[in-house]
Amino acid sequence: MPLKPSTVAGPLNGVTVIDLTRVLAGPYCTMVLADLGARVIKVEHPDTGDDSRHIGPFIKGKSAYFMSINRNKESIALDLKAAPDRALFERLLAQADVLIENYRGGTMEKLGYGFEALAPRYPRLIYAAASGFGHSGPYMKRAAYDMVVQGMGGVMSLTGHPGGPPTRVGTSVGDITAGLFTAIGIASALFERQHSGQGRKVDVGMLDCQVAILENAIARFTATGEIPGPLGARHPSITPFEAYETADGWIIIAAGNDSLFRSLGRALGRPDLPADPRFDSNPNRTQNHDALKVEMEKSLKTAGTEHWLGILEAAGVPAARINNVAQVLSDPHVLSRNMVCHADDPDVGRVTMAGNPIKLSGFADPESRHPAPALDEHRQRLLDELHAVESSA
Amino acid sequence: MPLKPSTVAGPLNGVTVIDLTRVLAGPYCTMVLADLGARVIKVEHPDTGDDSRHIGPFIKGKSAYFMSINRNKESIALDLKAAPDRALFERLLAQADVLIENYRGGTMEKLGYGFEALAPRYPRLIYAAASGFGHSGPYMKRAAYDMVVQGMGGVMSLTGHPGGPPTRVGTSVGDITAGLFTAIGIASALFERQHSGQGRKVDVGMLDCQVAILENAIARFTATGEIPGPLGARHPSITPFEAYETADGWIIIAAGNDSLFRSLGRALGRPDLPADPRFDSNPNRTQNHDALKVEMEKSLKTAGTEHWLGILEAAGVPAARINNVAQVLSDPHVLSRNMVCHADDPDVGRVTMAGNPIKLSGFADPESRHPAPALDEHRQRLLDELHAVESSA
Repeated sequence: MPLKPSTVAGPLNGVTVIDLTRVLAGPYCTMVLADLGARVIKVEHPDTGDDSRHIGPFIKGKSAYFMSINRNKESIALDLKAAPDRALFERLLAQADVLIENYRGGTMEKLGYGFEALAPRYPRLIYAAASGFGHSGPYMKRAAYDMVVQGMGGVMSLTGHPGGPPTRVGTSVGDITAGLFTAIGIASALFERQHSGQGRKVDVGMLDCQVAILENAIARFTATGEIPGPLGARHPSITPFEAYETADGWIIIAAGNDSLFRSLGRALGRPDLPADPRFDSNPNRTQNHDALKVEMEKSLKTAGTEHWLGILEAAGVPAARINNVAQVLSDPHVLSRNMVCHADDPDVGRVTMAGNPIKLSGFADPESRHPAPALDEHRQRLLDELHAVESSA
Repeated sequence: MPLKPSTVAGPLNGVTVIDLTRVLAGPYCTMVLADLGARVIKVEHPDTGDDSRHIGPFIKGKSAYFMSINRNKESIALDLKAAPDRALFERLLAQADVLIENYRGGTMEKLGYGFEALAPRYPRLIYAAASGFGHSGPYMKRAAYDMVVQGMGGVMSLTGHPGGPPTRVGTSVGDITAGLFTAIGIASALFERQHSGQGRKVDVGMLDCQVAILENAIARFTATGEIPGPLGARHPSITPFEAYETADGWIIIAAGNDSLFRSLGRALGRPDLPADPRFDSNPNRTQNHDALKVEMEKSLKTAGTEHWLGILEAAGVPAARINNVAQVLSDPHVLSRNMVCHADDPDVGRVTMAGNPIKLSGFADPESRHPAPALDEHRQRLLDELHAVESSA
């Protein structure tokens, strides 16, 4: 633990991460690591810093996007092409457990900082790369963005309504999924290093992660030969498991087995439905989903969503409202789980953000976070700490 | 390492996971752990086994869904309410590093196997729970399904087209995201246990994870007060970053800054576009995205998707096709990254599945996987190993 540990208590206390990543995939990964107690030091280019500092919306000139993803992190501005900054970067690497970058494959090699160059000098360093296409393969040198990998990786072909225009997933799952897989790789490499003593390269490509999350769709295609397409808000093989119209909106009902379907029939006042041979098993219900939807909506449209939510909850049938973001952030369960947190930014004031969903016994789950750093904010602190550590070595 | 390690080489070699989970969130987590070299032993109910064994499509009577998610795992059938099976379960726990379950909160407590009951007896055991709503809060005892948490958690309110019907994300991100966050929690707890000697509870709720992945949308809402809605295939704050129509389909173009937009203008033969004051900065392009789409499609519709992909790649502008699942599985880069793998099932033959996107230096990345287990397939092997370990202790 050569540099001081993070002041956020968590299982990754004592781990220092040097973070070259920008925008979302990498910063999301390091946000999760920081929330788990790793010390994350962003190394940003002096001219612009992390590109997401310039992505709106802005509050008093600061990017809300940047502030939410980069809470709990520190910043130092370094130009990795300039000799004095390179020397400082290398002093930081000597004290680090993890280096993470999200450049296109080959970029770090050109800087002299690829894994092959660093591993002999820093044998315990875990080198994580979260790039668009990974560090091998024909597309290695391409830039990638979330929607590009959502398109190439198949999820857009499964999202939307049959015959409808392309639909992306409304949050950046291309970036975020890669961030999560990278965090798994880093934590696993940290675990392994404790008995092997060796660092490793963790090479994660956003497109690879999109393939990994197709799960079910790959199974369906390879089993049947049919190419799966979008299904609106309907599950491909479990019925009813869909969004249905009520008198005043929509309700999701997931009655995934025969027992739940009987409960649903009773709750809707429609005992005819489970008795109907078209609907008496999951495969039959799936085959006749259109007819079932018509029948269910005849009943559901006689009252509003809240009415049916009460009835279905009492009957033990999983059902839900489709919440917008405002409703999510005021849901009593979400609040009780401490999933709405904040940071107090010195210029902007209180910034609201999502909490950490990995709840661990024995560690606090704070509602507040350290605010995201100003560009180069921690230069002096880091220089002082490096000096102290190097003098005592 | 009391039980033998997994034969799959990886950073989690030596870790034994007792896996009570069913269907997707938990099994996806343990699939990732198994791909990283953990030994995963499914404990399934003798009557039905994991529910997903009964979810289609089926190949020769076996669930393709079950086979793809449960590769590399073993199975023993135990009824946790029956005394002899409980004794065997507890012998397995004594040799385990991780226990993972995905019951509703309170269920394991009723069996006498909640974290509070187990921790004194197995102080090094990491107890992971991947449930719908977590192990606290007002909805704790509800069952959850992927679409239920997609609806409650906000992503469905952001996916689809303005004014259109509800649209779920076409893969089960409700389950999968929870599986990924749980894997991060488990790996981090394993790392921490090596210096603390203590196990921990890892409590992950699917709904919490949906809140965590809203990122940007929360920032937008809290910064502007406007409730974000679905945007089809358009990025909320970066333009052009959308799916556009060509002569024969669609193309995604992500020209996220002014420099890329100028390159795009040249590539389309439309130097007028970057010069147009409506489109000369990202905020202006975002404000006038409708008009920009009309202008771009005038040019794009004069040729097919493949034509434009070639031109834009040469110009260095990120662009992509919207691939369906068949196209994904035959993409040369996806294949070169070993993201299409297989298992040879003794009854069914070759089963195709997605690979592991966490590529680690120093460990093989095999194309083949051990097939998913038959129910209770490994009972004798496990009994023999337990006997050997306990006799030598």
